Amino acid sequence: MEEEQSRRPAGEPAAEPGPAPEPECKNEDRVEDPEDPASTAGNGNSISSLEQPLLKRSTTLTASHLAIVGAKVSHIESLDYEIIENDLFKHDWRSRSNVEVLQYIFLKWAMAFLVGLLTGVIASVINLAIENITGLKMLHMVNLVRSGRYWAGFLYFAGVNLALTFSAAVLCVVFAPTAAGPGIPEIKAYLNGVDTPNMFGAPQLIVKIIGSIGAVSSGMDLGKEGPLVHIGACLANLLSQGGEGRWRLRWRWLRYFNNDRDRRDLITCGASSGVCAAFRAPVGGVLFALEEVATWWRSALLWRTFFSTATVVVVLRGFIEVCRDGRCGMFGEGGLILFDVSDVTVRYHVGDLLPVTLVGVLGGVLGALYNHVLHQVLRLYNLINAKGRMAKLALALSVSLLTSAGLYLLPFAVPCTPCSAAGAAGETCPTVGKSGNFKQFNCPDGFYNDLASLLHATNTDATRNIFSTGTSGEFRLDSLLIFLAIYSVLGLVTFGIAVPSGLFLPIILMGSAYGRIVALVLSNFVRIDHGLYAVLGAAALMSGSMRMTVSLCVIFLELTNNLLLLPITMFVLLIAKTVGDAFNPSIYEIILDLKGLPFLEPKPETWMKDLAVGELAAAKPRAVTLQVVERVSTVVEVLRATPHNGFPVLDRPRPGVSELHGLVLRQHLMAVIRKRWFLPEKRRTEEWEAREKFSSTDLAEKVGGGVDELSQLSLEEMDMYIDLHPFTNTTPYTVVETMSVAKAVVLFRTCALRHMLIIPKFQGLEISPIVGILTRQDLRAHNILGAFPHLANKRKVH
Amino acid sequence: MEEEQSRRPAGEPAAEPGPAPEPECKNEDRVEDPEDPASTAGNGNSISSLEQPLLKRSTTLTASHLAIVGAKVSHIESLDYEIIENDLFKHDWRSRSNVEVLQYIFLKWAMAFLVGLLTGVIASVINLAIENITGLKMLHMVNLVRSGRYWAGFLYFAGVNLALTFSAAVLCVVFAPTAAGPGIPEIKAYLNGVDTPNMFGAPQLIVKIIGSIGAVSSGMDLGKEGPLVHIGACLANLLSQGGEGRWRLRWRWLRYFNNDRDRRDLITCGASSGVCAAFRAPVGGVLFALEEVATWWRSALLWRTFFSTATVVVVLRGFIEVCRDGRCGMFGEGGLILFDVSDVTVRYHVGDLLPVTLVGVLGGVLGALYNHVLHQVLRLYNLINAKGRMAKLALALSVSLLTSAGLYLLPFAVPCTPCSAAGAAGETCPTVGKSGNFKQFNCPDGFYNDLASLLHATNTDATRNIFSTGTSGEFRLDSLLIFLAIYSVLGLVTFGIAVPSGLFLPIILMGSAYGRIVALVLSNFVRIDHGLYAVLGAAALMSGSMRMTVSLCVIFLELTNNLLLLPITMFVLLIAKTVGDAFNPSIYEIILDLKGLPFLEPKPETWMKDLAVGELAAAKPRAVTLQVVERVSTVVEVLRATPHNGFPVLDRPRPGVSELHGLVLRQHLMAVIRKRWFLPEKRRTEEWEAREKFSSTDLAEKVGGGVDELSQLSLEEMDMYIDLHPFTNTTPYTVVETMSVAKAVVLFRTCALRHMLIIPKFQGLEISPIVGILTRQDLRAHNILGAFPHLANKRKVH
Repeated sequence: MEEEQSRRPAGEPAAEPGPAPEPECKNEDRVEDPEDPASTAGNGNSISSLEQPLLKRSTTLTASHLAIVGAKVSHIESLDYEIIENDLFKHDWRSRSNVEVLQYIFLKWAMAFLVGLLTGVIASVINLAIENITGLKMLHMVNLVRSGRYWAGFLYFAGVNLALTFSAAVLCVVFAPTAAGPGIPEIKAYLNGVDTPNMFGAPQLIVKIIGSIGAVSSGMDLGKEGPLVHIGACLANLLSQGGEGRWRLRWRWLRYFNNDRDRRDLITCGASSGVCAAFRAPVGGVLFALEEVATWWRSALLWRTFFSTATVVVVLRGFIEVCRDGRCGMFGEGGLILFDVSDVTVRYHVGDLLPVTLVGVLGGVLGALYNHVLHQVLRLYNLINAKGRMAKLALALSVSLLTSAGLYLLPFAVPCTPCSAAGAAGETCPTVGKSGNFKQFNCPDGFYNDLASLLHATNTDATRNIFSTGTSGEFRLDSLLIFLAIYSVLGLVTFGIAVPSGLFLPIILMGSAYGRIVALVLSNFVRIDHGLYAVLGAAALMSGSMRMTVSLCVIFLELTNNLLLLPITMFVLLIAKTVGDAFNPSIYEIILDLKGLPFLEPKPETWMKDLAVGELAAAKPRAVTLQVVERVSTVVEVLRATPHNGFPVLDRPRPGVSELHGLVLRQHLMAVIRKRWFLPEKRRTEEWEAREKFSSTDLAEKVGGGVDELSQLSLEEMDMYIDLHPFTNTTPYTVVETMSVAKAVVLFRTCALRHMLIIPKFQGLEISPIVGILTRQDLRAHNILGAFPHLANKRKVH
Repeated sequence: MEEEQSRRPAGEPAAEPGPAPEPECKNEDRVEDPEDPASTAGNGNSISSLEQPLLKRSTTLTASHLAIVGAKVSHIESLDYEIIENDLFKHDWRSRSNVEVLQYIFLKWAMAFLVGLLTGVIASVINLAIENITGLKMLHMVNLVRSGRYWAGFLYFAGVNLALTFSAAVLCVVFAPTAAGPGIPEIKAYLNGVDTPNMFGAPQLIVKIIGSIGAVSSGMDLGKEGPLVHIGACLANLLSQGGEGRWRLRWRWLRYFNNDRDRRDLITCGASSGVCAAFRAPVGGVLFALEEVATWWRSALLWRTFFSTATVVVVLRGFIEVCRDGRCGMFGEGGLILFDVSDVTVRYHVGDLLPVTLVGVLGGVLGALYNHVLHQVLRLYNLINAKGRMAKLALALSVSLLTSAGLYLLPFAVPCTPCSAAGAAGETCPTVGKSGNFKQFNCPDGFYNDLASLLHATNTDATRNIFSTGTSGEFRLDSLLIFLAIYSVLGLVTFGIAVPSGLFLPIILMGSAYGRIVALVLSNFVRIDHGLYAVLGAAALMSGSMRMTVSLCVIFLELTNNLLLLPITMFVLLIAKTVGDAFNPSIYEIILDLKGLPFLEPKPETWMKDLAVGELAAAKPRAVTLQVVERVSTVVEVLRATPHNGFPVLDRPRPGVSELHGLVLRQHLMAVIRKRWFLPEKRRTEEWEAREKFSSTDLAEKVGGGVDELSQLSLEEMDMYIDLHPFTNTTPYTVVETMSVAKAVVLFRTCALRHMLIIPKFQGLEISPIVGILTRQDLRAHNILGAFPHLANKRKVH
């Protein structure tokens, strides 16, 4: 069901054949099939070389409706965030009793609570599993090394990692291709109004949980942070629907959530719960959702998100208390503060200005570089992944093998450091097997291998080690350089493979390494602890790549619990963001663009001021309209011939006067046809007539179904009439044709529209009350530039 | 210049005489006079009893345009946040060069920096002054007490306080009545789109700075937090205008800021800088502005606000470094963390659940009660303040006297406590004169007066004492009860007097007292430190009164630097807000309502779904329209007869066809008349003709001026024509008459409109292209209910 005009305007020469309309793919249920022929066809069609965009883009306003969701090409739809005011829904609101209102309010909060609770429990379980699997794996591997069986150690290490990667990748490839990657770009798109099919279902949730455990335990350079955000969103969506498919709970109360708006709010709660669970940062989670993920925001939602993250943090806290003193195997290291550096008193010196500025600038440059190279890698990976399941699996396994080799072999390249030189009073040195700053690995007693301390640990432990304070002598420069090099390579090659993977931790690892390197190199100027430089480096690189400021600042505050670090963190974040913005957009924007998700940017382009919506409408085919009492055959014809999701409804109440009655949704037309609510004669029905047949719940239901159903109508039925009065949204948002596209884009985005009607500025006889209809795709800069190339040489103002 | 229809519709019987239009007050410059006859007339008229609303409200849509700004009644206007797309402005954008764009970007950031810098410096200076004045005052007073001269001590104490209050109040009453109070509600209204005259000027800034110093040093129960927010906003406004009045800097670059949108952004920066400076909480400041103050928000603004607060915190940090070791007199106690309680490790016990929940519930109940009583007190005070300057002064001085008596005399009522019982190892006990937890006051050596420790200090020091950890035995229950009682009374009677005063600190003081009392009373259950209970109490009461969650949480985190307190703070805040919301709205909403500021709530009322904008327009007089080429005399007549700020412009391009050309602003019509850009014949001008005469800067200028100018036109000129083409905003926001008011309100608020045109749903001959025009006042629930009372029995859904 594409909502766009995919027919070409008659007058315009077809310079380039656009993708043919694919009526057989209009059924959402169909595209679910992971190897859907249409999807792969679109895929194979468009991805032909590294230079080409991943998805072919038409140069007119007739945009294709394909995008890469997770790792597969799907048909995408817009979401109905607008309040549909038709007779049936209106009657529903009016007749809603106080008890029902209370039920709704109670349920909203109960859902927010459940989302937080479940996200917290799942995050704790994932943590528990990862810590224990990794711990056992490392213990055995180190024992093999200690007994001198280096090759056996490697084979064991690489073998276990391969097995873990394989389990994660197989799940992902076979059961839920959309569960690959972090899922954050898709959530961002969803909250912007783009429905991404099969993104928030039960298979995705389960694969994401198990896949995350497998992928992170396999020691690959990826985090569980992004996947946790996706898990939170999946939970929210499933709860709001009462489950999925056949197992769906048919509880009456759930009907309140049977609309895109309430679901959007709940998914926002889920996303912030996920961030909160990942970083144990409740405020950071709320702010991340606000700054990075959500498109619309309001105070009430702020409060509810906050409630969800508070629940998460209480659950995490509970797990930590329960698991204290080793009751959960290897789990339980680290309290609520993930990387506590609060023991350092920060006093600023002028001398630190230079290295700190350098950390910020480098963070911006490296972040932008990372974005650029990752972009290229992802293009390449898309070509590989498009080759089929085996290719995806092979890619994942080779990355795992590369990771194992790097992590295992590199520590042999650095010399052992005597424990006495490290100057870490009070800590055991060296340590064998368990987590600790000073891993003995291949070294004799009294010595430790600093690179092994960083590489032979979970990514979280590695971060903790590199953030550790009072340890300026612990890490050698060459070890840090090797660490940075291997994690830069791994960070680039790991992200795009077909396992659940997050971006946060790889960037934190790279950033902390370069922060410490800067501190070591400029140690003459450095007065602040080297561990804090690692924190600053991580923050700078995050900011340089993701371009967030406030939420990152709070996340780092909550990660490190050192409030005195705040001014300097803010300083570094601002520098890194400014520098990064000079080069390219943020990594999420790059990924959104790469995937072809029609995300609406908050700021219209400057040249959009020079184009009126009327001109835009003129470049599209004429809008397909319906009369308010319409013949069934006409409706069927329109539904068959066009993929549009909304049709303006016109009326002619008396001769010489025409009326824009409103907008009717395809979904509602299909409901009418499905129920055969036809009238033998052409007349306007009474309000109660429709209510006898339709409940507002029926109408709210988004049933897949498609054009097939249309052919089941008898000839007799085709001759009857449909009265659209009860189904028409009589209050669609309208703009006058002289409105500039810039203002229309702002209106479209701030009011969360799906359709925007263009009405004529003239009033008179024989003037159609509607000029055209605009949708999301028509307002995207790229599509407009395709149709109006002369606008391209204007620039964007910040 | 009221924008509403203040003429009554012809058909409607005048049930109650509305306030007569006051054409002589339409000039903004006029109402500046603090004792303006019109203002006091409106004032005296409407404020007649405690039961009546402060400002008389009409029961129709013809709302009065009076509101209480600061402490005086003023005419208010809406702000133009909408982008005006007329020929002149459009040409300006098109011709803007890259250099100019860069200038604009540079200036935006430079302004944000300057706002932060100046706010930081001013906050430091205020702090310095308060600490030193209070310190010297206390030192001398204590010396008198130590030498047994109790009455001399009281007279000295009360006298100095009276003098300080007098200086603050006189400044406020004579030079800037709008500088009284916190200013936060007016900032909130400004950012919502309500212009509050004389609120953000130089007199306000100066009076606020000096008045704050005087008021806080006088020991009254008020904080410098609210005033600092106002100071930040004033700075932002003055910077954006290049100063005020005659001393205004006429720098060309400043023209970019000559619009309400950019000024709004800058004032948001100013507000967050103020909060940041008050609490030394950079992230809390940003979030406060986001959650409580600002109506519109976008990512780019988040970043810029963050930059401002980062600057503030660096300045504060610098001052603290400079003032270390007593180099600034009594200033310099306390680092960047105002109330540091990070030395306590928080481990949660089930037993604490009861007292903590109790703190939350009590916080909600007491907060709501405080809101309720304060509301009544403010009504009473408005009656007193309306009596004139002397009444205002007398009120302020009596509150000062009451405060002095309470603070001085009450410590005599409690017995002395032996230092040995306090159990504060390492601290000097007792202390004389300087700040410290154990004030000796009237006690013998080896004993201290715990109530004096709390009352004989600046409010900040008192908070620090009561928050201090490891001191569960320090404060006696009776002392705390006396403290709570006196500060409850003072907190209620102080806020409304004519000095700059903030609400934060009074609430923190009350809350911390009751938190400690709960801990003392339930000490059998309490395992967490009593100082932390004081923190929780303060947070709960703040949340119960102000109903903020996320920003309060972060502010308390930044105030106390104890991240482990976060989950429990969130818990308490959520409980307190929920309980408080069950009783009444937040204190800021109450004040906004009391002041009659037409604030647009984010959520429309449910019953608004049952009303169409067309019905609303029908209840108003017909919209006054202009033709696109109009006779001067008609324009003058319209400007004289109506106070509206926007006029729909119609055209009739060919017979039988009419056109809604757009909307022209009164301000632009006045500019045309002022420049005498008249045409001898009725014709459409070429685009360059207007540009020869008008620059976009001319048009952007908001000149006071008024109807007086209109009478200076000669008869000959009156016979000429004005071509409105170049001045008409051709893209006003429109809604079809069937749109429900609920959706219209959402559109109006999210798109920050000032005027919303209603267009007919019919298209045909002889149908006017415009049905009506709606403004802010028409969309306020109270006004609509006045005109449609039958809607009142529907309820609001959260």
